[in-house]
Amino acid sequence: MKLSSPQTLSQIASLIQCNYIGAPDFPVTGINEIHKVQPGDLMFVDHPKYYDKALQSAATIILINKEVECPDGKALIISDDPCRDYNFLTRHFSPWKMTDGHRGVDVTIGVDCSIHSTVVIGNHVSIGDRCVIHPGVVLYDHVNIGNDCIIHANAVIGSDAFYYKARPEGREKMHSCGSVEIGDRVEIGASCTIDKGVSGDTRIGAGTKMDNHVHVGHDTVIGEHCLFAAQVGIAGCVVIEDHVILWGQVGVPSDLLIGKGAVVLGQSGLTKDLEGGKTYFGSPAEEARHKFRELALIRKLPDVVEKLGL
Amino acid sequence: MKLSSPQTLSQIASLIQCNYIGAPDFPVTGINEIHKVQPGDLMFVDHPKYYDKALQSAATIILINKEVECPDGKALIISDDPCRDYNFLTRHFSPWKMTDGHRGVDVTIGVDCSIHSTVVIGNHVSIGDRCVIHPGVVLYDHVNIGNDCIIHANAVIGSDAFYYKARPEGREKMHSCGSVEIGDRVEIGASCTIDKGVSGDTRIGAGTKMDNHVHVGHDTVIGEHCLFAAQVGIAGCVVIEDHVILWGQVGVPSDLLIGKGAVVLGQSGLTKDLEGGKTYFGSPAEEARHKFRELALIRKLPDVVEKLGL
Amino acid sequence: MKLSSPQTLSQIASLIQCNYIGAPDFPVTGINEIHKVQPGDLMFVDHPKYYDKALQSAATIILINKEVECPDGKALIISDDPCRDYNFLTRHFSPWKMTDGHRGVDVTIGVDCSIHSTVVIGNHVSIGDRCVIHPGVVLYDHVNIGNDCIIHANAVIGSDAFYYKARPEGREKMHSCGSVEIGDRVEIGASCTIDKGVSGDTRIGAGTKMDNHVHVGHDTVIGEHCLFAAQVGIAGCVVIEDHVILWGQVGVPSDLLIGKGAVVLGQSGLTKDLEGGKTYFGSPAEEARHKFRELALIRKLPDVVEKLGL
Repeated sequence: MKLSSPQTLSQIASLIQCNYIGAPDFPVTGINEIHKVQPGDLMFVDHPKYYDKALQSAATIILINKEVECPDGKALIISDDPCRDYNFLTRHFSPWKMTDGHRGVDVTIGVDCSIHSTVVIGNHVSIGDRCVIHPGVVLYDHVNIGNDCIIHANAVIGSDAFYYKARPEGREKMHSCGSVEIGDRVEIGASCTIDKGVSGDTRIGAGTKMDNHVHVGHDTVIGEHCLFAAQVGIAGCVVIEDHVILWGQVGVPSDLLIGKGAVVLGQSGLTKDLEGGKTYFGSPAEEARHKFRELALIRKLPDVVEKLGL
Repeated sequence: MKLSSPQTLSQIASLIQCNYIGAPDFPVTGINEIHKVQPGDLMFVDHPKYYDKALQSAATIILINKEVECPDGKALIISDDPCRDYNFLTRHFSPWKMTDGHRGVDVTIGVDCSIHSTVVIGNHVSIGDRCVIHPGVVLYDHVNIGNDCIIHANAVIGSDAFYYKARPEGREKMHSCGSVEIGDRVEIGASCTIDKGVSGDTRIGAGTKMDNHVHVGHDTVIGEHCLFAAQVGIAGCVVIEDHVILWGQVGVPSDLLIGKGAVVLGQSGLTKDLEGGKTYFGSPAEEARHKFRELALIRKLPDVVEKLGL
Repeated sequence: MKLSSPQTLSQIASLIQCNYIGAPDFPVTGINEIHKVQPGDLMFVDHPKYYDKALQSAATIILINKEVECPDGKALIISDDPCRDYNFLTRHFSPWKMTDGHRGVDVTIGVDCSIHSTVVIGNHVSIGDRCVIHPGVVLYDHVNIGNDCIIHANAVIGSDAFYYKARPEGREKMHSCGSVEIGDRVEIGASCTIDKGVSGDTRIGAGTKMDNHVHVGHDTVIGEHCLFAAQVGIAGCVVIEDHVILWGQVGVPSDLLIGKGAVVLGQSGLTKDLEGGKTYFGSPAEEARHKFRELALIRKLPDVVEKLGL
């Protein structure tokens, strides 16, 4: 997320009572996670395995749990618990308060929309022109919807990321302060759920269509003109390029990439990135023609076992 | 769908500015798709592969993109884009306007029903006697529910078909103008979604029970006394005969037939029609006893590989 | 369920017009199913296969369809249809009437909660302190929620068990009169559904977190600090111990036990109890390391078939 007004390194460090390395007036203009950071952003890292990646990322302020050498043009904030302090900062700069009634504050709605009176619209939401939003839909805060979109009954857009920090006493919820960005001509089926980004955006590209009961996790980025059949489940931080087709009940774990134009047949479950332009099947999913050959070979097992006298 | 008042061939052709073959006063009483057509119905066909099937169907008016020979007793309308013109006609004869508030027009409700005040009921909906409809349920237009039915919270009945025509510029939504017909003593679980027919009906037979999160696609016809466990997904244009049991998370792709009394075990995924009276398992699903034998054979693979020195 | 005031054997027997064996003033303080019964509870049994189990259970009043010898300290009620009469008794002592509007009777809500005005709360519901309940959530009757819980939009808690008695004329619905008990610091995702117990409780232990579209069946008992990813489906009467992790789209059939700390990988489907502390994969699920070895062996099938000339 971008801060509504720029802060300085010393202001941020004093909020979380930490020491820092860098000029006191070093600018902090946003807060984000590793896969979304830009210059001006603060990010956090709390494991030595990721120190290098964090220090070399586009982020210019690193909230870190060790006093390491500060890269040129960057600043460090030293914390004994960067995750806790990051969570504090996102809550501080993006506090959450439940919408009262059916319309939040800072809501803009385009012309010629049909939005049912039961739809609940959170704060900081924009809806483009000629959209249809059916009864019972819930839009959390920070949802932006393009033109000519259709959202079917009881869908939920912008719910919190399923994202926790393991603590000895239980899981600590990471505050979700990101957004959902939906392009033009997107159709979202009944009872779909689309989580917001933790601090970045979940994106659905223009022209993409989803059937009922599809789940899309936080910070996932979906291209244009994709087609997802019913009950597809897509975890967080997935990247799906344009023109991808996922048939019913396909499952996509987090952090994977599906290349342009890939087709994944029903009930398949991914375990790795998929190259575009090919058809996949199985759980674990592999190229469909390999999988079908494998299924044919398995049908020869009675002969194999008989021939070997097993 | 049936037209509210009969039209003539020349009236229909003039609405879409097309030439026609047949008597100007040839009657047009309905609009439907290939798998639902009856005499008096107009249907469309836009691919030579399906010309014969369309011309020999029960439909008596064929909207087609080639001037072919007209079968006896039928009429043709010649269009450069039959799908576009069909979509125009269904929108023209069944225009959609969002229900204002919680009760649409032309709603009939039987005696002794418990319908929560948050339930949204669209236009042209009928509900039989002694039904219970829990909070948050959304009934779109053209839903007819029998007697003694129970619909659990946040279920959605009559949502649009997941059905598009691929166009160079993206997918064109087919207007759903069909209905959902639910028999007596049906119970539908929380958060289920049942899509309406594109121009025909989605049907749920009497006595059928569905657990939570079940999805039923457009124009699917389900028999009597079926039992579907949670998270079952059934695509469009499926036929499921009486007394079929689908256990949790089973997936049924479009256009398949499941015979009377078949049982499909949990997480199975169909790829072909299933004969009635048998038990099936697997993805792809096959008869359970074959699948279990196959699983037993796979457990012998270590011996096979050792014996062959592979 | 416990009866709001204790009854006597003769009172109960007269309600269902049955003969009984035991002292007329033998106390009946609750009604429950076999897996939940305690002394003072009435349970039913209608199949000789289960007579012994029922008679030797903790229940002290057995509603049974044969005049058998009555164990010491217990009482019998003889019925020609114990299931019908049990169903009558639960309806009699826990009659259901739809909540009028958004707040039922006997609702207690703790301090500092954010509960959206669209949330529907049934009768006999308690909500602890500092809970957040997002728009469109439906709480049926008899739901008890601990402190610091978060329930996301359009989730449904306390819906009826998917539980019927097969009758020649169709399935008879068993009346659900149990409850849902949710511990402290539980988070439940958008569009989740959690069914109430038939006559006992469905329980979610403290600190457990569920992603969107998770389904939990009736009388299932879930431990503390579990993590269930999106679209997990858990049937009725399942026991899941503490610290279990189920990844996306996992399916758990009824009556199974998952031991403490077990991890089940995405799309797996269980067919038997799982020992704790291990990782499982596949449908049917087995230990992941066995399953991965099996997948490696299957990849050798081309060599096997070639070597054998099949």
